[in-house]
Amino acid sequence: MITETERAETLAFLRKQVRGIPDFPKKGILYWDITTLLKNAEAMRLAADLLYERFKDRGFTKVVGIESRGFILGGILACRLGAGFVPIRKKGKLPAVKISKTYQLEYGADVIEMHVDALKPDDKVLLHDDLLATGGTTLAALDLIKSTGVSEIAACYLVELAELGGRARIPAEYETHALLTF
Amino acid sequence: MITETERAETLAFLRKQVRGIPDFPKKGILYWDITTLLKNAEAMRLAADLLYERFKDRGFTKVVGIESRGFILGGILACRLGAGFVPIRKKGKLPAVKISKTYQLEYGADVIEMHVDALKPDDKVLLHDDLLATGGTTLAALDLIKSTGVSEIAACYLVELAELGGRARIPAEYETHALLTF
Repeated sequence: MITETERAETLAFLRKQVRGIPDFPKKGILYWDITTLLKNAEAMRLAADLLYERFKDRGFTKVVGIESRGFILGGILACRLGAGFVPIRKKGKLPAVKISKTYQLEYGADVIEMHVDALKPDDKVLLHDDLLATGGTTLAALDLIKSTGVSEIAACYLVELAELGGRARIPAEYETHALLTF
Repeated sequence: MITETERAETLAFLRKQVRGIPDFPKKGILYWDITTLLKNAEAMRLAADLLYERFKDRGFTKVVGIESRGFILGGILACRLGAGFVPIRKKGKLPAVKISKTYQLEYGADVIEMHVDALKPDDKVLLHDDLLATGGTTLAALDLIKSTGVSEIAACYLVELAELGGRARIPAEYETHALLTF
């Protein structure tokens, strides 16, 4: 178990490992780069520990990770929780029969896909992505997962960008947790 | 520790979790799909265990994973080994100063990138990708990693496609290990 004080100290340490890169991917955007956290072995382990502590002992059977940065801590969480790992991928990457969801971006649209046999109705699913921004990708992923008839879905993130309002767009039925908020 | 018999039994079990998908991504190609292994919690844990057993206690400080499927077990391995995780990504995805390598594909060329500050000369690096095929991506990744001056590099894969000859193209100075060979 981790005490509240230890947790607060750990979160403060983890925040410092994320760096802001101005004007990426385009001018005016401040991009929060998690690669500096991931390359620090202690920081990565602590981030995994805190997410694990939050979701352990609750019977999650699958962690669904969103391509591609959601694969990193998503895989680690699956292994720690004793769950299987399921990738949601960009269009055309998955080889077997799949289900797809189209969602709007600022300019244009994007498509994500999941194998139709990846989940079963008795699965309990923890969705993971590195970043919660506007919530567009999350909502599309939740639709895909829900369409398989699974009984419980929660969502977790390494970083939430609060001012983009993603959390408010996620229906209250889905528990939503972000480790760090910027 | 795992005995040789247990190891052989585990590998036989893991092989059965990988499915062949005919004619993907194009006619005549048999695609070995690892998502069926990853979604099986026991199989994923056992695959991680075997890779961990092979590389533990050797002082690896970073696991470099190749986008995007190399992020899954790459992240898990980093966490298990107590190493940091470094992503090699497709062109234009990394936000900070980076180094790039162009390499030839069957038709055209591709580019992979790594942050210039991701590795330090005293790092010991374990490269991970899900698949060793012709070795083109691996050779490009090894070039990127070597250019940072690191002291030791090994490479590991979940699956090797032996007939594509990738292993023979990897210089002998790099220890190369694949869990499953098809």
